[in-house]
Amino acid sequence: MMSIRIAIIGYGKIAQDQHMPAILANPDFEIVATASPHPHPEAPGQAFGTHGALIAGMAGRLDAVAICTPPAARYAIARDALDAGLHVLLEKPPAATLGEIQHLEALAGQSRRTLFTAWHAQHNPAVDAARALLAGKVVTAFHIHWFEDVRKWHPGQEWIWEPGGFGVFDPGINALSIATRILPVPLFVRAATLRFPSNRQTPIAASLTFASERGAFGAELDWRYTEGERWTIRAETADGGVIELHDGGATLLVNGERRAFGGAGEYRSIYERFAALIRTGQSDVDSDPLRIVADAYLAGRRELVEPFA
Amino acid sequence: MMSIRIAIIGYGKIAQDQHMPAILANPDFEIVATASPHPHPEAPGQAFGTHGALIAGMAGRLDAVAICTPPAARYAIARDALDAGLHVLLEKPPAATLGEIQHLEALAGQSRRTLFTAWHAQHNPAVDAARALLAGKVVTAFHIHWFEDVRKWHPGQEWIWEPGGFGVFDPGINALSIATRILPVPLFVRAATLRFPSNRQTPIAASLTFASERGAFGAELDWRYTEGERWTIRAETADGGVIELHDGGATLLVNGERRAFGGAGEYRSIYERFAALIRTGQSDVDSDPLRIVADAYLAGRRELVEPFA
Repeated sequence: MMSIRIAIIGYGKIAQDQHMPAILANPDFEIVATASPHPHPEAPGQAFGTHGALIAGMAGRLDAVAICTPPAARYAIARDALDAGLHVLLEKPPAATLGEIQHLEALAGQSRRTLFTAWHAQHNPAVDAARALLAGKVVTAFHIHWFEDVRKWHPGQEWIWEPGGFGVFDPGINALSIATRILPVPLFVRAATLRFPSNRQTPIAASLTFASERGAFGAELDWRYTEGERWTIRAETADGGVIELHDGGATLLVNGERRAFGGAGEYRSIYERFAALIRTGQSDVDSDPLRIVADAYLAGRRELVEPFA
Repeated sequence: MMSIRIAIIGYGKIAQDQHMPAILANPDFEIVATASPHPHPEAPGQAFGTHGALIAGMAGRLDAVAICTPPAARYAIARDALDAGLHVLLEKPPAATLGEIQHLEALAGQSRRTLFTAWHAQHNPAVDAARALLAGKVVTAFHIHWFEDVRKWHPGQEWIWEPGGFGVFDPGINALSIATRILPVPLFVRAATLRFPSNRQTPIAASLTFASERGAFGAELDWRYTEGERWTIRAETADGGVIELHDGGATLLVNGERRAFGGAGEYRSIYERFAALIRTGQSDVDSDPLRIVADAYLAGRRELVEPFA
């Protein structure tokens, strides 16, 4: 089978740390180019400054792109790539708005190309196992705690504080993407409180209450934890079971007992899936996690908290 | 044909001014009950204090409900009504969140009942005519101006300022519902500015820029106009045509020339449609206008403006 010639657009930290190794490890793909406004001497393949230059310069020599720019830029790049007949993988969150995703899905359908919204946190063997354990169960309580230190994980990244930058939902949407994957019931927002630093456009913390007739379902997302960081999801079931995911979905505990998993890692799994989708002519577009964030904004109470500097 | 026995839940201004006359004028319906926390001596049929009491008290004697409460309460009422095997009409906006609409649509499918999201501003003969005129055309400019005096139209209504109360999007979503209906291209938010009174939870004004490759597409919604109120939508087409809707969609101007329309009015048309949907076992669920509002929140810049008292 011919390998899939792929380019990475947006050659920043996530592209270098995760996408590149996963692509290099997958024999289905051949990395042929990158696009980045900043030159990267070590970038593999041909280097371009913009996605437009890359699409034009690689015409006839490219099958697919992985879009790893900040979210606000992704829609226009994905649209141009689909227009040029390329398959598209979108880092999470796939776009800045639900309308953009809806439109890209329609374009992918028209151009018969693969569009894949890659929610990396869903691609953990522990997440699949949690999903299987909760299938058919009655969940009586469900809690997300996503506590981290924004200065440690996003040093100098100003876009996270700009409109469309998602703030604490940038990591928090990973938890939501796991939640929508593992829960056997639909998850939707009943109430929310969004805490905005008085000098910023996106929230630094958020509390979400989900609609549930069965008990307490909620999420606490907070970027102000310099100590005590945690990324945990806990579900209780009517039969007395407790399913916990720790470490952002990497570790599963069943009734307090840790289960071990092998597996190739999130991004290798993503590229296996992307190759399979391209080979079978399918798309995989999931906007549920972004819909939950949008609903939290729509229904949420805004609070101003101390400025972030 | 048996008439459809209907109850109104939430017997406030819109129910009394619009729904009741439209139901009374439609021989397909028989109004049999109302639910309202405040007693209305002149309310037709049996009067209940809550939707739960109404659904229980009218069991076997009711086919459908029209839900005219504030938006935040609609989901739970609609869910209970669908669970009880009733057809459901939702005033606009149909719910507080996109997740709620998605879930209600699934419930209606499961219970094989009609769910109808009634965007009243779409039910104007002038709107249908504008849609027909724009079909197949290239729209090169599109502008919404929705300027009104909140004190005049929402005296004492505190819910509009609470989370989930929509603020200026409460009238503005009417314009968006017309826009999504008449435009031959998908409409989605590129950027937005939302202006919140410093003491309130919902915006008093909003500027939206829509994604467009063809020219300027935008909306200005403002609740601070004590003079110069207007509710206008203007589209320019590549062939030099200008299509305008004035008076909130009631009046059509084509190249400056006014077209006259008869017709039964928005709410009569809504109940004709609701009856037809029930008779044919269909639902009509449109969440696009709410999706645009959610996207404006998601991608928008927040500005604090002077307090509203």
